[in-house]
Amino acid sequence: MSENDQTGQATIGVIGLAVMGSNLARNLASREGNTVAVHNRTTSKTEALVEEHPEAGFVATETIDDFVAALAKPRKAIIMVQAGAGTDAVIDQLAERFEEGDVIVDGGNADFHDTIRREEALRERGLHFVGCGISGGEEGALHGPSLMPGGSDEAWEVLAPALRSIAAVAEGEPCVTHVGHDGAGHFVKMVHNGIEYADMQLIAESYDLLRRIGGHDPDALADVFEEWNGGDLESYLIEITAEVLRQTDADTGQPLVDVILDQAGSKGTGVWTVQNATGLGVPTTAIGEAVFARALSSSEDHRDAVRRTFPDRPDLPEAPDGFEDDVRSALYASKVVAYAQGFDLIRAGAEEHDWDIDLAAVARIWRGGCIIRAKFLDRIAEAFDDDPSLVTLLAHPYFADAVRDGEAAWRRVVALAATSGVPAPAFGSALASYDALASERLPAALIQGQRDFFGAHTYRRTDRDGVFHTLWSGDRSEVSE
Amino acid sequence: MSENDQTGQATIGVIGLAVMGSNLARNLASREGNTVAVHNRTTSKTEALVEEHPEAGFVATETIDDFVAALAKPRKAIIMVQAGAGTDAVIDQLAERFEEGDVIVDGGNADFHDTIRREEALRERGLHFVGCGISGGEEGALHGPSLMPGGSDEAWEVLAPALRSIAAVAEGEPCVTHVGHDGAGHFVKMVHNGIEYADMQLIAESYDLLRRIGGHDPDALADVFEEWNGGDLESYLIEITAEVLRQTDADTGQPLVDVILDQAGSKGTGVWTVQNATGLGVPTTAIGEAVFARALSSSEDHRDAVRRTFPDRPDLPEAPDGFEDDVRSALYASKVVAYAQGFDLIRAGAEEHDWDIDLAAVARIWRGGCIIRAKFLDRIAEAFDDDPSLVTLLAHPYFADAVRDGEAAWRRVVALAATSGVPAPAFGSALASYDALASERLPAALIQGQRDFFGAHTYRRTDRDGVFHTLWSGDRSEVSE
Repeated sequence: MSENDQTGQATIGVIGLAVMGSNLARNLASREGNTVAVHNRTTSKTEALVEEHPEAGFVATETIDDFVAALAKPRKAIIMVQAGAGTDAVIDQLAERFEEGDVIVDGGNADFHDTIRREEALRERGLHFVGCGISGGEEGALHGPSLMPGGSDEAWEVLAPALRSIAAVAEGEPCVTHVGHDGAGHFVKMVHNGIEYADMQLIAESYDLLRRIGGHDPDALADVFEEWNGGDLESYLIEITAEVLRQTDADTGQPLVDVILDQAGSKGTGVWTVQNATGLGVPTTAIGEAVFARALSSSEDHRDAVRRTFPDRPDLPEAPDGFEDDVRSALYASKVVAYAQGFDLIRAGAEEHDWDIDLAAVARIWRGGCIIRAKFLDRIAEAFDDDPSLVTLLAHPYFADAVRDGEAAWRRVVALAATSGVPAPAFGSALASYDALASERLPAALIQGQRDFFGAHTYRRTDRDGVFHTLWSGDRSEVSE
Repeated sequence: MSENDQTGQATIGVIGLAVMGSNLARNLASREGNTVAVHNRTTSKTEALVEEHPEAGFVATETIDDFVAALAKPRKAIIMVQAGAGTDAVIDQLAERFEEGDVIVDGGNADFHDTIRREEALRERGLHFVGCGISGGEEGALHGPSLMPGGSDEAWEVLAPALRSIAAVAEGEPCVTHVGHDGAGHFVKMVHNGIEYADMQLIAESYDLLRRIGGHDPDALADVFEEWNGGDLESYLIEITAEVLRQTDADTGQPLVDVILDQAGSKGTGVWTVQNATGLGVPTTAIGEAVFARALSSSEDHRDAVRRTFPDRPDLPEAPDGFEDDVRSALYASKVVAYAQGFDLIRAGAEEHDWDIDLAAVARIWRGGCIIRAKFLDRIAEAFDDDPSLVTLLAHPYFADAVRDGEAAWRRVVALAATSGVPAPAFGSALASYDALASERLPAALIQGQRDFFGAHTYRRTDRDGVFHTLWSGDRSEVSE
């Protein structure tokens, strides 16, 4: 703790001391070179944090003026309040007091459109604004998150030492990179969360298939996921799946997963991912199904009505030989498709918003700290390092082999899910997406014919350039436009 | 043609005389009681229309002032220009000249959020604004479209005679109803188009399966669709599918569907449907897959890369016995799910925006004029007439029986598509949605466990009320919040 604390010598500040903000502040304070000013609207929260963590050497501040006065120049403040209107209010308070070259960081899950708007407004006032995606939950914030900052090059230079000091470390590298300008960081964080939805849904479908068809109980399935975590699927989400399945409810003695209400909640980022993907024309089908699956699970009235209407369900078959391995292969192949779709979306977003995003660097900073951290991301980083213009991960030899190796099993699992009545929407959708991309011809030609028929929307031809229309209600000759 | 044409006696006006506007104006002019003023920014277009159709008795107008002067009070003008900024400009021009009680109608495919904004702004100026969905393409506009007007009760009273006069007629009733206030009409038109996407994708998948696995050529498939059009599937889209498949390309002698480029285009409404469905938490999975399938078909680079990477495709099996009937059943069951999802979305939109929408009435006005017109919609109207609070179409006896009858075939088709490598994303997604709704338990419980593990998102329990959290990084006891 520096003796200059009260005289503007805090190297960085954190506003908003709920659990994510407190943990991030503690993380910063624990690293060499950082002296951390902290502030919360309710002063008692600030006092409690400072009292509980004397080792952190926090500079407690009661008012926004105190907070700003406590910061060394160029000032750096990380806002950790709930996304939305609250963020704008705090930004305004800081912007009124900050001076040219100071940096305001929004560490919440902001809609990247808001980040673009805020960055532009602050830039006009000579201030830097950084929208920084932070993944890793409470534990990540405390011990090392994955950080996705977007903003100007100057802001990145000012912030980099502090962000590097607190980020998770994977293979010796801090999990932080300058993602791109203005909204790039929050866009990439949004897609990260979308991928997380897909990954969790695929794991959930694997569990459901093994449970219903395989007949294993949760404890046995914990073993299966633990084993999978030793192979290609090694990842934080597989690891915690085993932990959750292993947990017994103290009250009932039942597996905890059986007493948890089966209605999945969600915050905004999954929905935003699908909304942006459709707007940009990127078919992120696995993410779409995952987001819809959560909504469906929470549609209590619909579920009740349909269950009552259809009490007779298909008989569940015995698990065929090798079913467990088949599900593992299907999960891996589907996961390749889901991640490929997510990276497609990042590239499309970058093109749309003129961001220079290094996809390999994004994969690298996701290897540690964040919820989707996985061995797998090393492979993705390698693929985009090998060929930065790689059109799709599916075309890279490593992932192509993975899909080829798993393909037959994947088909068997999706077919068995369909005949058994076990819903596997993300598995099925990922397979259909792969099959559509690999198809020589698609029935989209028929759709173009229909559109031309009813709406004169015209079509192109396979054999020559131009735009054509058949006079469907005339003599059915073809005209070109 | 009235002798008072030039002295404010036109009963209605149309602005924007591209093909949809011209046809709508001609339709209006051909009906008893309407005298139609027409206007276009480029006067030559107005002149051409009036010259070509002397029988219409149009009141041609050169300037906006002329146009407004030609209208009897309360003035009624239908704007038929391309959605977007152009619409706002024309609205402004009219609003400056219109007087209290006059009615401005937007007949384009506007985003319903824009319609809500415009209605509010014009209401403050004492004017009525009606966002009117119009379906049926060029032919519908000319001979009888399905009309979905949203706006005030007063505006509906003023407009109803003209709209009733031009609407398609189904079972003796004009295909128009007062959908609801402000944006309700454009919202319902948006969902109509979303359903249209799903319906077309399901037909395309049926065609593709019969083509690749069934081995039929397009002409033989035209017969199949023609036959289907004589049964439960009777609909405009099935009818024109047969027409398109029957068509031979004059140039090459090939079936036209084989020379049309297989990249499906789209306008905004399908994308908007999915964006709003995700925002409202309504799992319209079949529409989602249909919108994504079009985007995928147009992803030329991705398709090329994946085709080159995976040249070896699964062997296509012989068509199993009864395959054609199986596909028909799968199509019908999937269609029930897709329409159920669409009506769910209308209900959710109505709740969100406080619209009083009669779902049976919506189904009835879609029975004629529009692209998704079908026998099927009679059944939907009956279902919501029987029980306006019906939670989902799937729970109505007629549709439940249809699904039950087709269920085994549906499962066989989805399974065969998966094993054969023929993409059937909408079939698969509709089946998975049904299976998820009918399942006793969903693996969403595992997802809630994961979310609680990594983000302390909490969960609910099946056996008692409250919100719970397991201290995963502590002693793993459960706390309630």
